[in-house]
Amino acid sequence: MYQSQLKFLLLNGPNLNLLGERETHIYGETTLAELHSTLSDKATSLHLALSCKQSNHEGELVDWIQACRVTGASPVDGIIINPGAYTHTSVAIRDAIMACQCPTVEVHISQLAKRDSFRHHSFVSDVVLGTVSGFGIYGYELALLALVNHLQISDIQHTPA
Amino acid sequence: MYQSQLKFLLLNGPNLNLLGERETHIYGETTLAELHSTLSDKATSLHLALSCKQSNHEGELVDWIQACRVTGASPVDGIIINPGAYTHTSVAIRDAIMACQCPTVEVHISQLAKRDSFRHHSFVSDVVLGTVSGFGIYGYELALLALVNHLQISDIQHTPA
Amino acid sequence: MYQSQLKFLLLNGPNLNLLGERETHIYGETTLAELHSTLSDKATSLHLALSCKQSNHEGELVDWIQACRVTGASPVDGIIINPGAYTHTSVAIRDAIMACQCPTVEVHISQLAKRDSFRHHSFVSDVVLGTVSGFGIYGYELALLALVNHLQISDIQHTPA
Amino acid sequence: MYQSQLKFLLLNGPNLNLLGERETHIYGETTLAELHSTLSDKATSLHLALSCKQSNHEGELVDWIQACRVTGASPVDGIIINPGAYTHTSVAIRDAIMACQCPTVEVHISQLAKRDSFRHHSFVSDVVLGTVSGFGIYGYELALLALVNHLQISDIQHTPA
Amino acid sequence: MYQSQLKFLLLNGPNLNLLGERETHIYGETTLAELHSTLSDKATSLHLALSCKQSNHEGELVDWIQACRVTGASPVDGIIINPGAYTHTSVAIRDAIMACQCPTVEVHISQLAKRDSFRHHSFVSDVVLGTVSGFGIYGYELALLALVNHLQISDIQHTPA
Amino acid sequence: MYQSQLKFLLLNGPNLNLLGERETHIYGETTLAELHSTLSDKATSLHLALSCKQSNHEGELVDWIQACRVTGASPVDGIIINPGAYTHTSVAIRDAIMACQCPTVEVHISQLAKRDSFRHHSFVSDVVLGTVSGFGIYGYELALLALVNHLQISDIQHTPA
Amino acid sequence: MYQSQLKFLLLNGPNLNLLGERETHIYGETTLAELHSTLSDKATSLHLALSCKQSNHEGELVDWIQACRVTGASPVDGIIINPGAYTHTSVAIRDAIMACQCPTVEVHISQLAKRDSFRHHSFVSDVVLGTVSGFGIYGYELALLALVNHLQISDIQHTPA
Amino acid sequence: MYQSQLKFLLLNGPNLNLLGERETHIYGETTLAELHSTLSDKATSLHLALSCKQSNHEGELVDWIQACRVTGASPVDGIIINPGAYTHTSVAIRDAIMACQCPTVEVHISQLAKRDSFRHHSFVSDVVLGTVSGFGIYGYELALLALVNHLQISDIQHTPA
Amino acid sequence: MYQSQLKFLLLNGPNLNLLGERETHIYGETTLAELHSTLSDKATSLHLALSCKQSNHEGELVDWIQACRVTGASPVDGIIINPGAYTHTSVAIRDAIMACQCPTVEVHISQLAKRDSFRHHSFVSDVVLGTVSGFGIYGYELALLALVNHLQISDIQHTPA
Amino acid sequence: MYQSQLKFLLLNGPNLNLLGERETHIYGETTLAELHSTLSDKATSLHLALSCKQSNHEGELVDWIQACRVTGASPVDGIIINPGAYTHTSVAIRDAIMACQCPTVEVHISQLAKRDSFRHHSFVSDVVLGTVSGFGIYGYELALLALVNHLQISDIQHTPA
Amino acid sequence: MYQSQLKFLLLNGPNLNLLGERETHIYGETTLAELHSTLSDKATSLHLALSCKQSNHEGELVDWIQACRVTGASPVDGIIINPGAYTHTSVAIRDAIMACQCPTVEVHISQLAKRDSFRHHSFVSDVVLGTVSGFGIYGYELALLALVNHLQISDIQHTPA
Amino acid sequence: MYQSQLKFLLLNGPNLNLLGERETHIYGETTLAELHSTLSDKATSLHLALSCKQSNHEGELVDWIQACRVTGASPVDGIIINPGAYTHTSVAIRDAIMACQCPTVEVHISQLAKRDSFRHHSFVSDVVLGTVSGFGIYGYELALLALVNHLQISDIQHTPA
Repeated sequence: MYQSQLKFLLLNGPNLNLLGERETHIYGETTLAELHSTLSDKATSLHLALSCKQSNHEGELVDWIQACRVTGASPVDGIIINPGAYTHTSVAIRDAIMACQCPTVEVHISQLAKRDSFRHHSFVSDVVLGTVSGFGIYGYELALLALVNHLQISDIQHTPA
Repeated sequence: MYQSQLKFLLLNGPNLNLLGERETHIYGETTLAELHSTLSDKATSLHLALSCKQSNHEGELVDWIQACRVTGASPVDGIIINPGAYTHTSVAIRDAIMACQCPTVEVHISQLAKRDSFRHHSFVSDVVLGTVSGFGIYGYELALLALVNHLQISDIQHTPA
Repeated sequence: MYQSQLKFLLLNGPNLNLLGERETHIYGETTLAELHSTLSDKATSLHLALSCKQSNHEGELVDWIQACRVTGASPVDGIIINPGAYTHTSVAIRDAIMACQCPTVEVHISQLAKRDSFRHHSFVSDVVLGTVSGFGIYGYELALLALVNHLQISDIQHTPA
Repeated sequence: MYQSQLKFLLLNGPNLNLLGERETHIYGETTLAELHSTLSDKATSLHLALSCKQSNHEGELVDWIQACRVTGASPVDGIIINPGAYTHTSVAIRDAIMACQCPTVEVHISQLAKRDSFRHHSFVSDVVLGTVSGFGIYGYELALLALVNHLQISDIQHTPA
Repeated sequence: MYQSQLKFLLLNGPNLNLLGERETHIYGETTLAELHSTLSDKATSLHLALSCKQSNHEGELVDWIQACRVTGASPVDGIIINPGAYTHTSVAIRDAIMACQCPTVEVHISQLAKRDSFRHHSFVSDVVLGTVSGFGIYGYELALLALVNHLQISDIQHTPA
Repeated sequence: MYQSQLKFLLLNGPNLNLLGERETHIYGETTLAELHSTLSDKATSLHLALSCKQSNHEGELVDWIQACRVTGASPVDGIIINPGAYTHTSVAIRDAIMACQCPTVEVHISQLAKRDSFRHHSFVSDVVLGTVSGFGIYGYELALLALVNHLQISDIQHTPA
Repeated sequence: MYQSQLKFLLLNGPNLNLLGERETHIYGETTLAELHSTLSDKATSLHLALSCKQSNHEGELVDWIQACRVTGASPVDGIIINPGAYTHTSVAIRDAIMACQCPTVEVHISQLAKRDSFRHHSFVSDVVLGTVSGFGIYGYELALLALVNHLQISDIQHTPA
Repeated sequence: MYQSQLKFLLLNGPNLNLLGERETHIYGETTLAELHSTLSDKATSLHLALSCKQSNHEGELVDWIQACRVTGASPVDGIIINPGAYTHTSVAIRDAIMACQCPTVEVHISQLAKRDSFRHHSFVSDVVLGTVSGFGIYGYELALLALVNHLQISDIQHTPA
Repeated sequence: MYQSQLKFLLLNGPNLNLLGERETHIYGETTLAELHSTLSDKATSLHLALSCKQSNHEGELVDWIQACRVTGASPVDGIIINPGAYTHTSVAIRDAIMACQCPTVEVHISQLAKRDSFRHHSFVSDVVLGTVSGFGIYGYELALLALVNHLQISDIQHTPA
Repeated sequence: MYQSQLKFLLLNGPNLNLLGERETHIYGETTLAELHSTLSDKATSLHLALSCKQSNHEGELVDWIQACRVTGASPVDGIIINPGAYTHTSVAIRDAIMACQCPTVEVHISQLAKRDSFRHHSFVSDVVLGTVSGFGIYGYELALLALVNHLQISDIQHTPA
Repeated sequence: MYQSQLKFLLLNGPNLNLLGERETHIYGETTLAELHSTLSDKATSLHLALSCKQSNHEGELVDWIQACRVTGASPVDGIIINPGAYTHTSVAIRDAIMACQCPTVEVHISQLAKRDSFRHHSFVSDVVLGTVSGFGIYGYELALLALVNHLQISDIQHTPA
Repeated sequence: MYQSQLKFLLLNGPNLNLLGERETHIYGETTLAELHSTLSDKATSLHLALSCKQSNHEGELVDWIQACRVTGASPVDGIIINPGAYTHTSVAIRDAIMACQCPTVEVHISQLAKRDSFRHHSFVSDVVLGTVSGFGIYGYELALLALVNHLQISDIQHTPA
């Protein structure tokens, strides 16, 4: 069966390890561990394998994205990334996503357009498949669905009958 | 049962009546009628009532958004809007959304960040709940889910036990 | 008697039909109907004829402004306009005002300089007689007085003794 | 005979119904009716069918442009458009022109570069075939010629010998 | 009786002492003395006490605005200010108005939007109650009315029955 | 007969000597010699005298434009100029056109609005009669017509009956 | 004799009282008193009356400029002004010069274009007769000559033979 | 003993005479008199002589700064200045500080980066020794310490053993 | 005793490990080790515990700032940070400071306003308590004092009598 | 005798050969030949040798400026240049002036600050000795005087007694 | 043998004829003649034919670049160009390079990023193969090598085995 | 022998470990290992020692650059750096290069001017010796030669005969 083969990677950027602790009026009260747990359950129900990572280090995020392009037995089929503050400053993460060529979805917990003007520009928006923002941590779940939908459509379009 | 009471309005802006006909490499081949049909089925399966409208007229879109704030027997619980070209030029639609005070989700079929620079700014992003962009017409379905999720959470938070 | 001949037109732009309902902390609690009634009383006391209209449609506002230039039995002597959101986006309304050549006063209920930066520029300010802003709905009454004063002065200046 | 089959649409935007009446030092003294009459004569002499419309409503102009793409018995072969004030503010008209895929020529009666700086940018210039500006109402006649020339060249290039 | 207790201060900034002498095509032919006289009469008819001052010195205007906040026997109830050229350059006057916390109305004789671009920004607009501009010296009279109206409304709203 | 007296000058700027050779997808395959020949034939049919020149030197173009203002036996009645790259950088050509006071039409083979952003500004657009752009080399012919039309109208307007 | 009737006023702005003391590598070693003495000698040799003043106060400079417009027995025929730092910040001095309508020459000791970018814009340059900058204190002498020359030419032009 | 010879001048700019009265949520509740008293005590404990002045007049502040450069019996060794609103608009004060060549420390009570964007630029920051901002009135005390430290270091460095 | 309980963290960003070695005309000749030693002595004299760290890695600085918010036995009471080059580029450090909610003081050894324009903007200034800049390494000592003063005031204000 | 040895070069840029013919309301009615004659007389009276040239070619002006640096029997002691339109576009002329290292004075007949905004920036102002603008052709005479004065001062300063 | 057939053209722009004479701290002491001699020797050692030209005239440089595209017996295989000041102002040279379609390398003797901001933008960088800057006149030699390397690679890639 | 003593360090920034794998139409098909091998051979042939490193971590690159300034037995004589994406965002790397004071050459494989506008600015260009861009991986070899040439010239210039 097709979907059971899909492997996704969830990457969270700087300060998202504090989810549920800092600025809860913006980010909500769910912790990162709880988010990982909820999403893993959701992934299981969708017959997906989901791996979850977080880092405050730009270079480490670049390393992880690059690793998705390793050709071989166990490729990653899609990436969900919330680059946090690096959304607005990292050309390196952008370049890694482009190099990776793996379908990627950008998620933001808050609606960035409502916040500081320097948060309105994203260096990754124009190299990802699509963006989900403003729906709290539920946005990650929507991103999962979006990736699955995208891969199914691609599959239908690209697979000979 | 709760969700059967939810009533949503889907608004599509200028040129979206040509969905499936124009620039299909960007917008896909589904027509607006097919989109409405698919979303209505989805809404039914979620026990929602969904009403779908499209207009090329800014003023008509403003009229329809205002109508959602009629207090009385049959309120609208949420709006899904793809303002099309008016995304980038209409302060009037923005003001109507603010006046309406109804939870609103912004959808874009294409990833605007990949297109002309004058399409990068949205006049509605900072007055809506959240935004879904770049996932083709599947984005409307994600918007439906996001609205339902939002109303459930609000319901849980605001309803006494 | 001179003033009894003056005919004024009051135009309100998009979302002003919601006056007294939306964002009452900004716009106050008087409804548009009440405003029209109050102004009509005031106009009567000044021996003026006042006609009041509102539209959410840019083109309709353009139509109405153009109609003021119809030469014939019943010209309009002055226009009071609150273009609402179109203040900031409509070159068409600006052009109509210029074409109309009828003395026009711009009114804003709130003080625009205190709000979003995209509300600081008005496309009509440099083609109208003057502007009144920030005094709530009382600003419309001041606009009436300003128009009357302007026409009296012009009359004095242009009329041979 | 080839040219007798060509059907053109002339669209004039907001305030152009006042042609010959307003700001005659800029726009000249010919009325819109006279312009339509002159152009129809010219079209007849070129064995073309010309249909002329004007609207102050952005949405109506979008509707009319979209109608040109109706596939069937009687397609429109070319559009001549003077979007008036919407030249500078309407992404919706731009998108309609792109969707329509009908050869389109932009006309301006005055030389926009000589006027207010906000009139220097056109949202349609980079999606039309070409632009004629500054020659008064004679520019419409040049636009007719340009469209005919363009279609003849295309015909020569695309038609097998 | 209520209104007889109101005390207003009128402040005119640099070069307004030349009113009626310089650039009369812009500012009109009434002198500052005549303006003061006319306004005093008007104030008397409204049962107000009006004090009028003019200075070319930014610091002196700051001093006078500060003086309005002296708490004691004879407070000033409202300020009408035409900051002249300091409108566009003085943060100090702005800060004084904020510190004073006295209802203040900004008046401009000419319509600033029609003049040099460096006159389009006002440092005081977003710290005053409202602005009247473009109506010549009659604007001062409108400002008087606006202040009275504002204080009456506040009075009604804030006074227990 | 009137028109036989008209003398026009056609000026082409830098790199237009390569017409038909370079970037033929943009500029077409007609050479400059062929263009001159075609236009001369057209001019003859209109009873005009047309002189054609091209230079890569800004100063030489300035010299030629200045020469048109020599008062005497053989004045030039109109100039058609495609300033090529100097469109975007030459204040000297602009000043020469202003000094010359000869009716001038600006032509561009390609639609500049579709190309690099530094090609969107023209230093001559606001000192010429009008502009024709985007119609390939046919634009030169339209420019001829526009000049003739302009001179006829001027003639009619300025000539006593 | 004509020139003996000319009366000039020299105004120096803030910090120019320190001439010859501060930043002598920029402003030279002549003191303000020496400058006044040298210029008075020069003025005498030209049969002019020269009055010299300096102030650090913007308002005082405005007062002095206004005083030049006093009509009566002893008008000032020309002003030489070095507004110092107020060159870049004072709209009030600009307005005073415009109101005064007295021929005015702007002088700068240093070449402003070589210094901080905020010194490149002058609020008075476009309301004065002309500007002399970069020639050290000798610039004041050139300004004297320029004013005399200007008044002689005007005299010749405006005086009936 | 060395430090007993140091003489400092404290200058406060416009509206700081209202310290402790206006916007106490920003500036605190200490009055200017109390601040002067506290700082004088602190100065005494550091064996310094401190003179304190305040003015709303830009020119007066310039005068006072210039006075510090008077060479003679009683020089000022350092200046502490809070230019208030003139921080953002006065080139004259900047030039006076440069001319004075006396070590100067800039103090701001509030953290300017948290306030209006026009308060983010300081005309004096790049001509003073250093800046202390955001620590309330305690910042003045830190400025005192910074000046003493600077003069001691300079003394050590510049004094022969 | 109160102050003995205060624990401060000093963080230095990239290249500050080279203090005393690189660009000594800007940063002085004290090494980072010597600075740490001096500040520790100062801290001891103030009965504070001071911990000092330096990193060239943005992510490591984020980690350390986050660690200050660990609730439990040994919280950090205040942070002194010189983010070095990350001052101008790191939104991640800014977000960490906001998340940490620990009183933070920003220090810069040099006066940034005197250096490259890209060093004039700080991403942390508007989320810290205050800033000290331009006083060399003595600025760190001032920062210590500022933090102590701030905590004492807060203590007084927030502690019930 | 010293001054008889001074040799000056006067360079006029594009379109200045039309002096006295074009736009005489701006440039006056004196022709270039007359200007050269007047200045030569003036130069003779000052015991100077003056050479006058004009070109519409940027490269030719660069050649002439470079020639001034030829070391040998007959150096040029100073240059007076009115670069005309090249003032605003030529980095090459700027570089030639820098390479030449000959004292140079910039002259403009009109006051550039009163004209198009693209004429407000000069590429040569910050590499010349000083600028004279706005005094009509008399400005060239002032430039002569300024150069003589500059060379005398330099002579005095650099020559041993 | 292949390389002996390569023919290169070296073009130097305005003021580079002064190499070794002007601003030797920036450009070094080698003259243009010496540079040509050195490069010719280097070219000979690489079995290349190198032709060297310099002009101060923009049009002449355009002419020379165009000449490289003459198809026939003796094509130029590559161009090395240092456009000097025209780097920053010439769209004409840019267009000539594009039209020429000959591999071109841009050289700058100094590192432009270290100089005036108007030297940071190059109009040719995005139409050449690559750029070498900052290595003094040795950069020309690197450019030679780069061109040879490029042609060899192309040769290998484009030549059938 | 001299050159055998030179030690160079090659640093490649983020994503360059993917050389030869990602976007091969831009970066070519050579892998980083192959590049290192080729350059080491080249270095050997030039009697140089070359050390090659790559990192995705900004801080690690800063560490490595700082290490080059360790004074002692084994200094690095020159650095070749391709900062990859950090070219456009890292002030920290820039500061490290400045602190290091080791001759540094910047290399870019692609011609940045042809790519996204945010890649046009480099934070290191104005602190390095020179830049080579656009020549593919051959640019590294050119950089090696440039460094050797620079050190030889410096050696000649700085070494006493």
